[in-house]
Amino acid sequence: MREEAVAKILNHLEEEFPAALARLFALLRYKSVSTDPAFSEDCRQAADWLVEDLRAIGFAADRHDTKGRPVVLGHCRQAGEQAPHVLFYGHYDVQPVDPLSLWNHDPFEPRLEKRDGREVIAARGASDDKGQLMTFIEALRAFKAVEGRLPLNVTVLLEGEEEAGSEALKPFLHEHKEELKADCALICDTSMWNGQTPSVTMSLRGLVGEEIIIKAAQRDLHSGYYGGAAANPIHILARILADMRDESGRITIPHFYDGVEETAPQLQADWEKLQLDAEHFLKPVGLWQAAGEKGRSLAEQVWARPTAEVNGISGGYEGEGFKTVIPAQASAKISFRLVHHQDPLQIRRHFRQFVQSRVPADCTVEFREHGAAPALSLSPASPFVQKAQKALLEEWGVPAVLVGAGGSIPIANDFCAVLGVEPLFIGFALDDDCIHSPNEKYDMQSFRKGQRSWVRILAELAKIQEPPAR
Amino acid sequence: MREEAVAKILNHLEEEFPAALARLFALLRYKSVSTDPAFSEDCRQAADWLVEDLRAIGFAADRHDTKGRPVVLGHCRQAGEQAPHVLFYGHYDVQPVDPLSLWNHDPFEPRLEKRDGREVIAARGASDDKGQLMTFIEALRAFKAVEGRLPLNVTVLLEGEEEAGSEALKPFLHEHKEELKADCALICDTSMWNGQTPSVTMSLRGLVGEEIIIKAAQRDLHSGYYGGAAANPIHILARILADMRDESGRITIPHFYDGVEETAPQLQADWEKLQLDAEHFLKPVGLWQAAGEKGRSLAEQVWARPTAEVNGISGGYEGEGFKTVIPAQASAKISFRLVHHQDPLQIRRHFRQFVQSRVPADCTVEFREHGAAPALSLSPASPFVQKAQKALLEEWGVPAVLVGAGGSIPIANDFCAVLGVEPLFIGFALDDDCIHSPNEKYDMQSFRKGQRSWVRILAELAKIQEPPAR
Repeated sequence: MREEAVAKILNHLEEEFPAALARLFALLRYKSVSTDPAFSEDCRQAADWLVEDLRAIGFAADRHDTKGRPVVLGHCRQAGEQAPHVLFYGHYDVQPVDPLSLWNHDPFEPRLEKRDGREVIAARGASDDKGQLMTFIEALRAFKAVEGRLPLNVTVLLEGEEEAGSEALKPFLHEHKEELKADCALICDTSMWNGQTPSVTMSLRGLVGEEIIIKAAQRDLHSGYYGGAAANPIHILARILADMRDESGRITIPHFYDGVEETAPQLQADWEKLQLDAEHFLKPVGLWQAAGEKGRSLAEQVWARPTAEVNGISGGYEGEGFKTVIPAQASAKISFRLVHHQDPLQIRRHFRQFVQSRVPADCTVEFREHGAAPALSLSPASPFVQKAQKALLEEWGVPAVLVGAGGSIPIANDFCAVLGVEPLFIGFALDDDCIHSPNEKYDMQSFRKGQRSWVRILAELAKIQEPPAR
Repeated sequence: MREEAVAKILNHLEEEFPAALARLFALLRYKSVSTDPAFSEDCRQAADWLVEDLRAIGFAADRHDTKGRPVVLGHCRQAGEQAPHVLFYGHYDVQPVDPLSLWNHDPFEPRLEKRDGREVIAARGASDDKGQLMTFIEALRAFKAVEGRLPLNVTVLLEGEEEAGSEALKPFLHEHKEELKADCALICDTSMWNGQTPSVTMSLRGLVGEEIIIKAAQRDLHSGYYGGAAANPIHILARILADMRDESGRITIPHFYDGVEETAPQLQADWEKLQLDAEHFLKPVGLWQAAGEKGRSLAEQVWARPTAEVNGISGGYEGEGFKTVIPAQASAKISFRLVHHQDPLQIRRHFRQFVQSRVPADCTVEFREHGAAPALSLSPASPFVQKAQKALLEEWGVPAVLVGAGGSIPIANDFCAVLGVEPLFIGFALDDDCIHSPNEKYDMQSFRKGQRSWVRILAELAKIQEPPAR
């Protein structure tokens, strides 16, 4: 594509920005919380809205009902056999909004705000992932409006259960394997390096989710009568959780570090230049010391080292006031972030043995699975990565940083394993977007320049005439 | 009093038993939960009902409103200056009923059930303490009905905040100090040794209640982005709670054992005869090994050793499914049971230092007080104790066991300190009454023979012509 053609499309985006914002607001109003069945109808409505929007652009799009929330699938494959084929992935479901009391407004009534001098779109899902997925859809719309066609073949896959473990998507990928074949999966669910610097995410941590429920007496006991003699499941749980790491912050579960590699010296040196330190990374959230493994840089701690985090704990009397009870049970939700070649199923197995060995003989433990996915990493030599870097440099005026990411996008593993597609992670979120937290937002600039970036990336990717063997 | 007179009163009790049961049912229907302000009107109604019932017996009784729940106070002092004066104490408030789903019926709709072959009264408060306090009131009623008078001077004091820390009662004792002067406080809130053997409780553990709230980041964080670098308050809390005891079960808080005495060899020997072991004490609740300090008998663990129990813990995502969050805060409610000369305020101070020293520099901890009372113990040489033993032997046919009690009745300390009254702890609850738990009950036999026991005890105490100097 010639530069002038791209410039025309970018101009069109600028003119149409208010309409694009209105469309995003419409999507944000759907309460598409996937973890709570109470919102399943809202999820269905959000899926229908997306189907209609893709059809309006000229996609052959449909809602596919699953055991869980629906999948939205659309195709526009008129660029010819020689053109590359990209599979765009996003998710329309959002995290729960609790604690609601900490929000400054209705999470599902989006509004524009000024925060730290920047214009932002405030709503649950504004960043994760509705705002991000609409940057891509708006880029497609602009191409069609100006050129009448797309420069490459495009499949859009939008799921409704990313925040709930993508249970339904995996079988869907298997069932629609042929239909979903593509050269590259564009996954728009990651962050920029900072407000001025884009990034391409080269690695993602894997994830194992586990819930443990320690059960002691058959019923809650009076802590006066029984205290000192009866097992207290909160004590047992606290001991297990405390035992999980040593004084240096290292996880003590046997075989936990099997498959973990040391960070390459070159990568370490690159990361050092980024000044990803406690001052920059933790100060904005009110902390100021890295709490992970001692002797590791903060970048290593969040990108290249595995973790064990307790995400929730519960037991006994949690209401106002006091109740002198020894509870019958106590529970915790724990997630492990994995790197390199750590095996999720082995991690689960070793963790369960570790827990089991710490439960007294007259107590029991119940385990519940909450997903398992290995880590993932890409090669900087990929033509898709290189074309994307070029496009991002043109839009932002500074080179994209090649980063790791601490988070997990388990379904990306399935894109590789099931579809044989190479994933490319580019997103325009910022670290202060408060995703998964109250008062989530997406910068107006992320939404605007995100759309522009996709126009440039699609134009660049279209130039790849010999996509790697499918 | 002559034996025949007592026998007549006991007969009257048997005839009137159905009416007594109906009265208890009426009292049990009031949802007098003291820890939750939503039930304050129910507490007031329960207090009014008791005032009316005492007046019906011939007491000069009134409801005294306080900052918290009302106190019921009634007098019947017509036995003359020479007769002893007893102050009867009970409480009409009850514990919260959650988790409601574990109850087999509405906790405030009392019903008769067969459990383990025994007839029981099932309802919240059936044992703790409405059923127990009515044993005493029914004994008084029978005396008045048969004899037209009581054999000694009686004051009845019923509070409505025992389960919430008795905050309002302490100033009430000070304000009504002269009016409440008595020789002995009869406190009916303890258990029998077993279904056939009464007991007199000679010691009670003290209690310190504390709540700690660990605060880390300003908001909930995504455990992928921040995991490994940001402090997790659940980890900090788990570490603190695990650190609180060593492998032998000993509490590690500095100075915690200051003021704790070794159990006298004679008492140890007496307790050994009781066969208070894991088999008898823990099997009924589904456990079978004593979880307290190693090398101590179970009787010591629950009666003569201090404890630190976590009564509740909360933090992060506790709902269905999973949320990969590092929470902004986590909290725990902790109670210490004290023995001998442990100083509650020193325990609190040392605990707070212990916690504070384990909170990272970029995190904070907030403390909340939930009551503090020292332990209490009585002399077997007291004439009140000896007369009560005689009366209980007559009713039950076996000697009463002199026991310690693991629980705490903090207000008993104030009876000694403020009023200078000697407390006497006699109650007819059983260990399987499920107090503070779902499906609380009171044995029909406890209710029936409890009333009979009080008739005999009052008749015996009336014989004390020279009460110890007031």
